[in-house]
Amino acid sequence: MMKAVCLLSGGMDSATAAYLAKEMGYSILALHTTYGQRTAGREERCAEKIASLLGAEEFIKVNLGYLSVFGGSSLTDPSIGIDSQKIHQGLPDTYVPFRNANLLAVATSFAETRRADAIFIGVQASDYAGYPDCRPEFIQAFRQVIETGTAEDTHIELMAPFVLMNKRQIIAKGLELGVPYEHTWSCYRNEDVACGLCTSCQYRLEAFREAGVPDPIDYVQV
Amino acid sequence: MMKAVCLLSGGMDSATAAYLAKEMGYSILALHTTYGQRTAGREERCAEKIASLLGAEEFIKVNLGYLSVFGGSSLTDPSIGIDSQKIHQGLPDTYVPFRNANLLAVATSFAETRRADAIFIGVQASDYAGYPDCRPEFIQAFRQVIETGTAEDTHIELMAPFVLMNKRQIIAKGLELGVPYEHTWSCYRNEDVACGLCTSCQYRLEAFREAGVPDPIDYVQV
Repeated sequence: MMKAVCLLSGGMDSATAAYLAKEMGYSILALHTTYGQRTAGREERCAEKIASLLGAEEFIKVNLGYLSVFGGSSLTDPSIGIDSQKIHQGLPDTYVPFRNANLLAVATSFAETRRADAIFIGVQASDYAGYPDCRPEFIQAFRQVIETGTAEDTHIELMAPFVLMNKRQIIAKGLELGVPYEHTWSCYRNEDVACGLCTSCQYRLEAFREAGVPDPIDYVQV
Repeated sequence: MMKAVCLLSGGMDSATAAYLAKEMGYSILALHTTYGQRTAGREERCAEKIASLLGAEEFIKVNLGYLSVFGGSSLTDPSIGIDSQKIHQGLPDTYVPFRNANLLAVATSFAETRRADAIFIGVQASDYAGYPDCRPEFIQAFRQVIETGTAEDTHIELMAPFVLMNKRQIIAKGLELGVPYEHTWSCYRNEDVACGLCTSCQYRLEAFREAGVPDPIDYVQV
């Protein structure tokens, strides 16, 4: 059976990507990373639940806490308010510098060790246009790094099925696949009841509205 | 003043690369990574000493212990003897899958946060020809990942000055630069007195012989 390392953040996009991997016939190796972000606990519980529902062979949790030591993002630095200011020129304060390259490097090491055939990542460029490490050019460049930086007999396909989709299209696909969105988390601020106000909640709520289905989670304020 | 993130493993090549960065006029941001390898303690002390001698602005230590959780390398898995067997087809058992991509991802996040101008890595392809993530093609591919995956106003040059040199040439350069090789560690097996027998000790000893200078560290057996 083909095996896929699925990066499961606890959010909607990565859960949908993992359900797609399952539908495509891959056995799932679930990889969750935590990096000192405010909502780490809730995201981990969601990722673990999704992995369990998918019957994942493994659920591995990796701590990239150094990303919060470096600082520079409102997701990991309590002194910076969420959606409060710009840190890097033209980028939201929620940007964690080069985060996805770190995630993909971890995923590739894991995949090479387990002789997996693919890596699934749920990045999408359209909504979070500000994040450079979500763009198709970045994914394409990382494919070349995998190709050149792994053993000759290692062949890992990097799958970013939603890179050109928007969140509404991802939800539409996820509803087809039966993704249990009640076990996903998007809020940047809270771990108990989603705030409904941060950019991540707003994107999620808008996507559910456009998809014409109710969001199964609760909000403080909508 | 231009700033460079220097990956300091505690070994000779990275120490020489950092001395080169200093000579080129960069202020040094030292980054040491540990990943559960057998000789981690000694390597960290060496890296910290080199950083201190270079007057580094920062010395940051990052734990990539997940690489030992994944397994597959004799450097991190006590059940695999050093230089005892091949794990991946055609590769030494000391290969840690995709390690350098993980190091470079960390270094790039650090560099982007600090608005550094360059990253120095001491990889060299000639002696450790088996490691795919030491090859020029890999370094070139990673440059493209940095270019596409960081903010538009981020410009980080990835410097791998020794990628096409052999160890003798690196030592020759290091002697010119005054690198204190007594504060570097190469042995894969021991942390106190170098074994003199593992492939890493053998490469080091041979390089010093060829450079015509004595290796300043002690060995159990030469």
